[in-house]
Amino acid sequence: MSFFSSDFTLGILGGGQLGKMLLTETRKFDIKTAVLDPDASAPGRIATNSFSVGNLMDFQTVVDFGRQADVITVEIEAVNTEALAALEAEGKKVYPPSAALKIIQNKCLQKAHYGANNIPTSPFTNYESLKDLMLDVVSGTLSLPFVWKSAEAGYDGFGVQVVREIKDLDTLKEGACLAENLVDFQNEIAVIVARNAKGEAVTYPVVEMEFHPTANQVEFVLCPARINDQIAQHARELALRVADSFKIVGLLAVELFLTKTGELLVNEVAPRPHNSGHYSIEASVCSQFENHLRAVLNLPLGDTSSKMAAVMVNLVGAAGFQGQVKYENIEDILKIPGVTPHIYGKRETRPFRKMGHVTIVHQDIEKARENAATVKSTILVKST
Amino acid sequence: MSFFSSDFTLGILGGGQLGKMLLTETRKFDIKTAVLDPDASAPGRIATNSFSVGNLMDFQTVVDFGRQADVITVEIEAVNTEALAALEAEGKKVYPPSAALKIIQNKCLQKAHYGANNIPTSPFTNYESLKDLMLDVVSGTLSLPFVWKSAEAGYDGFGVQVVREIKDLDTLKEGACLAENLVDFQNEIAVIVARNAKGEAVTYPVVEMEFHPTANQVEFVLCPARINDQIAQHARELALRVADSFKIVGLLAVELFLTKTGELLVNEVAPRPHNSGHYSIEASVCSQFENHLRAVLNLPLGDTSSKMAAVMVNLVGAAGFQGQVKYENIEDILKIPGVTPHIYGKRETRPFRKMGHVTIVHQDIEKARENAATVKSTILVKST
Repeated sequence: MSFFSSDFTLGILGGGQLGKMLLTETRKFDIKTAVLDPDASAPGRIATNSFSVGNLMDFQTVVDFGRQADVITVEIEAVNTEALAALEAEGKKVYPPSAALKIIQNKCLQKAHYGANNIPTSPFTNYESLKDLMLDVVSGTLSLPFVWKSAEAGYDGFGVQVVREIKDLDTLKEGACLAENLVDFQNEIAVIVARNAKGEAVTYPVVEMEFHPTANQVEFVLCPARINDQIAQHARELALRVADSFKIVGLLAVELFLTKTGELLVNEVAPRPHNSGHYSIEASVCSQFENHLRAVLNLPLGDTSSKMAAVMVNLVGAAGFQGQVKYENIEDILKIPGVTPHIYGKRETRPFRKMGHVTIVHQDIEKARENAATVKSTILVKST
Repeated sequence: MSFFSSDFTLGILGGGQLGKMLLTETRKFDIKTAVLDPDASAPGRIATNSFSVGNLMDFQTVVDFGRQADVITVEIEAVNTEALAALEAEGKKVYPPSAALKIIQNKCLQKAHYGANNIPTSPFTNYESLKDLMLDVVSGTLSLPFVWKSAEAGYDGFGVQVVREIKDLDTLKEGACLAENLVDFQNEIAVIVARNAKGEAVTYPVVEMEFHPTANQVEFVLCPARINDQIAQHARELALRVADSFKIVGLLAVELFLTKTGELLVNEVAPRPHNSGHYSIEASVCSQFENHLRAVLNLPLGDTSSKMAAVMVNLVGAAGFQGQVKYENIEDILKIPGVTPHIYGKRETRPFRKMGHVTIVHQDIEKARENAATVKSTILVKST
């Protein structure tokens, strides 16, 4: 099948910033696309051949949308997997496969998958309800501190809570959940894998994530991670093994803990382009978005090596501002060599909402990190 | 004025491949755009907020289009400059300025400009008609060989002809034209300048162009050019001086001859993103398209240094094929590390039509050139 300047159509479920950045690559290759998103003003409404508004969790909406496409992919996990399975049964190619997405969507199933596949992860217990978890706390079977995770709908720090004291239990939501050991880690790192339908796979260099102290969101991503080569090599091999275990086609971002004893534990995965790979647009020979496209089209995978060191800074809405967005001091950061802002195009800001990111490249990672700190303290995402 | 996620509108005259690649940058910064092109299926019809079909040479069409924008720019020279002057008179920002565009559009005026500004160029004579040129040939005032250039509407090798023998005169078109000395050059090189309204300017590294032996089209562009540093530095200084002489805002691509005696002569210029700068998307810290955008918005200019060496290969329609395009062997070139195809999205191919380009990056320019030769001999632009 010919993809380039043809009638072949790639269907993309979700038109947020990840969909938007994927569309840059489909335009580069002139591949026809259709995008579905619940929000009529989603960033991915532009640069696609066809944009539809609809609920990604609605069975019929997803099936109807998928039927007009030749290959279907996602930029978000929260998609109706029954609909994806129905499309697969009709012979459509769905990447990631619905079976993988169904497991990954649910943190309890995801953890159980690691157990079943001998993939190192922090010790955990799955619970069908919050009540069951509470009973274990009461009986002393589950001792504090631990990390609580909601089985579903957790992202960007929502649905995850460290429980250190009894009063922290108050804030937990009802529903299926898990408790896992609090890991004493030295670094949170990530590896992105691209894997095509032939089973060919490549990994990106290990990146290091620095988190915001209170919002539990990634603030800086550094590539390469400042860890030793042997650990980096192990992390890449482990990530490949995780991608194989899910039979992923497309991208899989694998987030890992590097413990203080030098152990690698898989934290969680995302079967799509990922925040930890945004740096690759400027720094990698082939970006994560181009490799996602290559992978879902079963094309040869691109070179994941870096042209330069890079740091990515997330641009989130400043605390205390809500409404029509206004970016302050972008002109100041544009004066710094190697600085590239990406503005997602969301009109409304709110505290900690992801509104964009900035990539900072430099030959020297430490220098890139310094410039990133300047960027972070200069640019402000406020409201008008 | 705030440009990012605001109601500010950039108007782009022309929606060909240059417009399309410029739109990638406006999407990255979330800057609202409107595009005007005579072709309803132009590559730039997608990824803009508003696309209109209309004649770029029609006064009223261009004025009406320009009035809805805050800043107006071009991706092609063949635009009604009277309309642009009228828009300037109404207070609109037009970059490049209409006065510069008017001179550059016409090769006789452009050559006269170099004469008046003490910019080195090959010796030439302007003629109001082909008849006047013929009279000079007959009288012996103009001797063969020489290069004939039509004053207007010449691009991609059309409107330019080397006259070596009397019979070559037969093929020349009627109209204002010029005759210039045939330059005995060792290299054709180019320098792209980005200049903003504050008069700040930056230059890209010198690139080297290799031409197709018969079609008179650029086949390979190499960055950096394989010339010595001192000549490269002189070329960049000369290009800056040319940009200043035109009071350019936006990009100016300056094509130069490096003669066998080491002299630099300005051949011609283009006040817009240019084929010789396409490599910059992959290889430069800030691409020519991003710098065009920064320049016309009067933002600080980006770093023009290279992350890696690069060679750009033009993908043109194969001789003997016309109709619905079909790209052959793209999958083979995608296997080569550092290879990025850009498919412009023109549905119809014809011999030598520019249908796309491929960038090849490598740490070593010679190795990039080898891979580029492989790309060139592998990929084929045919019709179905």
